[in-house]
Amino acid sequence: MADKRVVLAYSGGLDTSYCVLYLQERGFDVITVSVDTGGFSAEDLAANAQRAKALGAVEHHAVDARQRVFDRYVSYQIKGNVLRGQVYPLAVAAERVVQASVVAEYALRAGAAAVAHGSTGAGNDQVRFDVVFQVLCPGLEIITPVRDERLSRDEEFAALQARGVEIPASVRQYSINAGLWGATIGGGETHDAWREVPDAVYDQVFSGPRAVERENVVVRFERGVPVALDGETLAGPDLIAALGAKCRAHRIGLGVHIGDTVLGIKGRIAFEAGAATVLIGAHRELEKITTTSWQRYWKDQAGEFYGKLLHEGLAFEPALRDIEALIDRSQERVTGEARVRMDDGRFAVTGVRSPHGMMDRASGVYGELPELWDGADTRGFATIAAVPGRLHRNAGEAG
Amino acid sequence: MADKRVVLAYSGGLDTSYCVLYLQERGFDVITVSVDTGGFSAEDLAANAQRAKALGAVEHHAVDARQRVFDRYVSYQIKGNVLRGQVYPLAVAAERVVQASVVAEYALRAGAAAVAHGSTGAGNDQVRFDVVFQVLCPGLEIITPVRDERLSRDEEFAALQARGVEIPASVRQYSINAGLWGATIGGGETHDAWREVPDAVYDQVFSGPRAVERENVVVRFERGVPVALDGETLAGPDLIAALGAKCRAHRIGLGVHIGDTVLGIKGRIAFEAGAATVLIGAHRELEKITTTSWQRYWKDQAGEFYGKLLHEGLAFEPALRDIEALIDRSQERVTGEARVRMDDGRFAVTGVRSPHGMMDRASGVYGELPELWDGADTRGFATIAAVPGRLHRNAGEAG
Amino acid sequence: MADKRVVLAYSGGLDTSYCVLYLQERGFDVITVSVDTGGFSAEDLAANAQRAKALGAVEHHAVDARQRVFDRYVSYQIKGNVLRGQVYPLAVAAERVVQASVVAEYALRAGAAAVAHGSTGAGNDQVRFDVVFQVLCPGLEIITPVRDERLSRDEEFAALQARGVEIPASVRQYSINAGLWGATIGGGETHDAWREVPDAVYDQVFSGPRAVERENVVVRFERGVPVALDGETLAGPDLIAALGAKCRAHRIGLGVHIGDTVLGIKGRIAFEAGAATVLIGAHRELEKITTTSWQRYWKDQAGEFYGKLLHEGLAFEPALRDIEALIDRSQERVTGEARVRMDDGRFAVTGVRSPHGMMDRASGVYGELPELWDGADTRGFATIAAVPGRLHRNAGEAG
Amino acid sequence: MADKRVVLAYSGGLDTSYCVLYLQERGFDVITVSVDTGGFSAEDLAANAQRAKALGAVEHHAVDARQRVFDRYVSYQIKGNVLRGQVYPLAVAAERVVQASVVAEYALRAGAAAVAHGSTGAGNDQVRFDVVFQVLCPGLEIITPVRDERLSRDEEFAALQARGVEIPASVRQYSINAGLWGATIGGGETHDAWREVPDAVYDQVFSGPRAVERENVVVRFERGVPVALDGETLAGPDLIAALGAKCRAHRIGLGVHIGDTVLGIKGRIAFEAGAATVLIGAHRELEKITTTSWQRYWKDQAGEFYGKLLHEGLAFEPALRDIEALIDRSQERVTGEARVRMDDGRFAVTGVRSPHGMMDRASGVYGELPELWDGADTRGFATIAAVPGRLHRNAGEAG
Repeated sequence: MADKRVVLAYSGGLDTSYCVLYLQERGFDVITVSVDTGGFSAEDLAANAQRAKALGAVEHHAVDARQRVFDRYVSYQIKGNVLRGQVYPLAVAAERVVQASVVAEYALRAGAAAVAHGSTGAGNDQVRFDVVFQVLCPGLEIITPVRDERLSRDEEFAALQARGVEIPASVRQYSINAGLWGATIGGGETHDAWREVPDAVYDQVFSGPRAVERENVVVRFERGVPVALDGETLAGPDLIAALGAKCRAHRIGLGVHIGDTVLGIKGRIAFEAGAATVLIGAHRELEKITTTSWQRYWKDQAGEFYGKLLHEGLAFEPALRDIEALIDRSQERVTGEARVRMDDGRFAVTGVRSPHGMMDRASGVYGELPELWDGADTRGFATIAAVPGRLHRNAGEAG
Repeated sequence: MADKRVVLAYSGGLDTSYCVLYLQERGFDVITVSVDTGGFSAEDLAANAQRAKALGAVEHHAVDARQRVFDRYVSYQIKGNVLRGQVYPLAVAAERVVQASVVAEYALRAGAAAVAHGSTGAGNDQVRFDVVFQVLCPGLEIITPVRDERLSRDEEFAALQARGVEIPASVRQYSINAGLWGATIGGGETHDAWREVPDAVYDQVFSGPRAVERENVVVRFERGVPVALDGETLAGPDLIAALGAKCRAHRIGLGVHIGDTVLGIKGRIAFEAGAATVLIGAHRELEKITTTSWQRYWKDQAGEFYGKLLHEGLAFEPALRDIEALIDRSQERVTGEARVRMDDGRFAVTGVRSPHGMMDRASGVYGELPELWDGADTRGFATIAAVPGRLHRNAGEAG
Repeated sequence: MADKRVVLAYSGGLDTSYCVLYLQERGFDVITVSVDTGGFSAEDLAANAQRAKALGAVEHHAVDARQRVFDRYVSYQIKGNVLRGQVYPLAVAAERVVQASVVAEYALRAGAAAVAHGSTGAGNDQVRFDVVFQVLCPGLEIITPVRDERLSRDEEFAALQARGVEIPASVRQYSINAGLWGATIGGGETHDAWREVPDAVYDQVFSGPRAVERENVVVRFERGVPVALDGETLAGPDLIAALGAKCRAHRIGLGVHIGDTVLGIKGRIAFEAGAATVLIGAHRELEKITTTSWQRYWKDQAGEFYGKLLHEGLAFEPALRDIEALIDRSQERVTGEARVRMDDGRFAVTGVRSPHGMMDRASGVYGELPELWDGADTRGFATIAAVPGRLHRNAGEAG
Repeated sequence: MADKRVVLAYSGGLDTSYCVLYLQERGFDVITVSVDTGGFSAEDLAANAQRAKALGAVEHHAVDARQRVFDRYVSYQIKGNVLRGQVYPLAVAAERVVQASVVAEYALRAGAAAVAHGSTGAGNDQVRFDVVFQVLCPGLEIITPVRDERLSRDEEFAALQARGVEIPASVRQYSINAGLWGATIGGGETHDAWREVPDAVYDQVFSGPRAVERENVVVRFERGVPVALDGETLAGPDLIAALGAKCRAHRIGLGVHIGDTVLGIKGRIAFEAGAATVLIGAHRELEKITTTSWQRYWKDQAGEFYGKLLHEGLAFEPALRDIEALIDRSQERVTGEARVRMDDGRFAVTGVRSPHGMMDRASGVYGELPELWDGADTRGFATIAAVPGRLHRNAGEAG
């Protein structure tokens, strides 16, 4: 029976290639979809198409979803200054959610009976795929061959070879995820929290000459979203790519992240996310002259929660839409420029300016007496501000 | 009438020296108190004593309050990872609060009629002094000659010279605050958010040879408090001093902070706070293997609020005591070591370990299937986690 | 000199009537503005106009701002379920802010040199007026005769009588504030937290026959805003008036509020706010079937903060605009009906329904096994949910 | 093979009685434990012991855990004013957690191979039991016959009858949970959010004569915990019982709760929780005179989260321990008395007093000018408080 269709999230690697065979054996017509969220080269995409065909997929689709990832999630990660554990720009979660969303949409359009993904039972991604599928295409079976069968990589290789399909044997010691908002590297030294991650580990995700000169870049933001780099207007994904190249030359944005996985255990990864790190830093400083203290207090709290739920695959929780509305409103004036100095592994935001800046000489300069008040006002302010503390102290002594 | 006593927070500088004269003219016997929170050298303290006497103070006291600042506030800033605007270790506020507290205590013991401080009407410190005085010695008059009289520095110089007291003329372009937890530099370039703060500005607060070699240090924490450096047990202030010297050699912890002042305007300062920056970074990473995600979520929120109110001079707000209790409880297992790599302006926490670490191979390694669950469990987890999203989606379509 | 104009917030009472004279003596042309936020009857407004004229005001304006109060603040108090201390619907603050805003707008339009209000130095309202004036018309002098002069009521009476103006001598023991969202009663028993407030105190703000029969009303909400009562579409202020009459007949919404005043001391008032109490209760229940748990968690937190700052007169803090955006987004589906049973001093929300309800039989009924999962799923869910607790327990024992 | 032991949470009802047989068939020696958290009468406990023996249990234990529930969770629900959805005192969750904890402890002491509970796959309790077992006795098998086998009640009856054990056939239309902190009633009208729950439904959980007279009670709290009723010192569970009897006579604490279940669907129940409702209300008012505004702000937020996680069975999340520390600290002065008036279905807290009260005449009375400030101080306070709003408005116009 071959009138049952399944749509498979297809990365072109060993696991998902094996899935094509597995699903066919279960009697499905397999539609493969490779959703590019920044991790595929043109060659990767071409190879995927060819391999899917060779494996017998009835349809293959390549979808460029980089702008969608940017608009739907990354732009909020910037506007919300979302860093997991204060350091990690949360590179993978949004991409998986968009990949799963695209696959679900193809499945609904194709009238498929099932959707499939190649995640194992060990990691975060299975939950992200499962949850999105449950929400977006609730009637469809979710098939997860790698999680359910627990085949070894050797068995998968053998099965593919029997079909005449060769997957370049990955001899890598590390597990790599690369995408629009950064790359993560897991394995080896990263799994022991005490071991230093050697610089060479980052060679897994990029190479290229090292910049020798200090360099400045100016990022322009409009309502919290980066829109131009050194005066050149760029779409989000292109801006990230251009800035990322500079960061890699300066070895900026290399880090190690210890975090709580979706399933509750601890994990440690190395990551390269220069553009993300710099954009969030630049945005954060621009916010400081264009928003009030309470605005940032609230969006910091909300951004932390936003990142937590996005990380955990709960991207469709409607509370995140409410938080996005808060964040969007807070960004109405976060328009202006930030200058970033890059220098041998370090960066600093050396200047910010905005037509909506609240730090101008007319309003007073800190340390000089502004026109806004006089000494009697500040004395009065302190007098009233002290009242709860005074009452509290009195009441303690009285009791 | 000279039976009225006033206790003055005495820094030995132009403003507070002038205050001694001013208060005498108002008929007070002046008691000067220099509270060392890390910003005085032995020479400074000796000069203060001599100068106070020359100005006619009836008593002078020098109080070493460094350990008190550490225990009362700085230890919570570490345990709470308190950074203003994600970057600034909040160096000044706690010191002012402790200085004011010590002065208030001296005033109560001396049966003084008044307390005095030399703050101007322009900045944060006046509020911190006023509020502490209002709470701790509510019946006493608070006298603030500089704020009330608005004399020029020239007038102050002249008045002191007339009494035969010379204050070394500070020709500095910058206003400096140095103490246990860092030094701040305001003035010149810092007042324009777009201007880069030149490296030379930091020469205002330290000098010395630059380290050329990458260096590792190991910080040991007990219940969240740093207690040893490279195996040597040190009291908090001494540990900060020793680590700070290393940081300065590596030019680590130099930054620029844009913030909201107590009085509501924006301010921008340069700061040097290497030990603070490194200790908070090291502590934060150690927490990641010894606490849960929700624990950090709550203490991050609480720490942000704690820093906000401490900055604003509301150190006696009892909600801060409640937050300290939460923070203390969260630190019960934050015992262990963090290794920090220092290198030419950068630092990285390259390893953490704890007897209470929650990331060990027995519990499973991220990316490998742990013993804690199997694929059916994660599928079940995702199924239930998706329920609110599914219901929400259904209800939206239905409506 | 009569070319200086001042705009005075004019209630028609003793204090503000005296202010008209005072301001004239200071050489101002006085423009009086009575802003009706629900507290004036038609007779009050007519009397105000006549009295202002008699006192020599060069212009008098009566402004109906009830809809503005509703749209700008009260609608958010409903959507955000804002109750101070879990009990008090925060009746006065929004009204003062709108009154001050209208006065400021008149002053700007009139090219006035000053604005004035009649608040004393003892209470919350002076801060609310001052802050709004500072923000909306920052160049204008703020004149507060009652606060600054501290005249006795007898002196004010005498001054007015000398001008031939009689104010009906209020012999009331209580201070009353009545408006759109409720009435407050302060004085006498309310000032002692241990004394019971007698039922008769509420007679100060309403009278009328008491309903004897249990009664149901149905409130219809659209996107969180009440729009109809028992099927009749009504503008917000009219709906509040109609529902309020029913509540008063049933003696619903009478309470006592202990709170922290803007100036930091404690205060206790009695209040009558039946419509507010019922509308917030009804809305809250409708939300429970149309929003998720995390949505309500966030809006509850945000609503609490919103109420706090509104109470404190900080209505123009932009963080409140951000929170309003969050609240608005959360209300997209809060459309439907709530049935309220009223009965001798009590009310209960006895039913809610919505086209966007998430509690329907199709999704499963609590206690019956829904189609959404099976026992293996819940077992898996619990297994994963327990992981952090397990790791934490292990790590504690290990250490 | 009968050397394998299982410990079963035994309520004595149909489901858990059936479990005894089921577990024996699986080859276990069954130890039954009936943990009384307020829901068992002495007769119930005796009947359970007899029935367990008749079914062949090798050991039976009855454990009075009421004080443990009170100390471990209910006292924090009072101190934290924990109400789900602002109305429901969260009666069941803490009891299940303690029941599961006791069972786990018996299992560890008995060297059992397994633990068992009789929850179905439909509700919250399965997750609470599972999670506690996973954390407290992680090596033991968790057996859940009712969830796994999905037998009908008729099949269970038949199996028990075959063993000669009669369970009184519950013909109830409703599912009842009764315990220390309240009773819940689910079924029939409660499952439809629009249907009114008739008064008669509450007859399911109590009866008795109705009080006709208004009545006052005085509750004394020490550090936030109720310790005496009308002057009589009582242990927590006894105080709840005594107050609960009064509440039932006055028909106070009857309500309907719509909530989000642990598994994500919505549920609606009726409840009777008079003592809980009154104690939380009385405590909340006493807090208002003994704590500051920010203290309550933080503990309200933390209490909401505490209730959420406790409800969801995550009682061992260490963040709850941190929150308990915050709550405990906040209660240091919440000592004093609250007077509650009870009257025909309503109650009101009519007075509170404390040796640590912050609302006394010495500190000023709201509406009268206190000694703490004068008009210039409040003017100054408002001037400074307005600064961020002014800057924000300026910056908006400039941009």
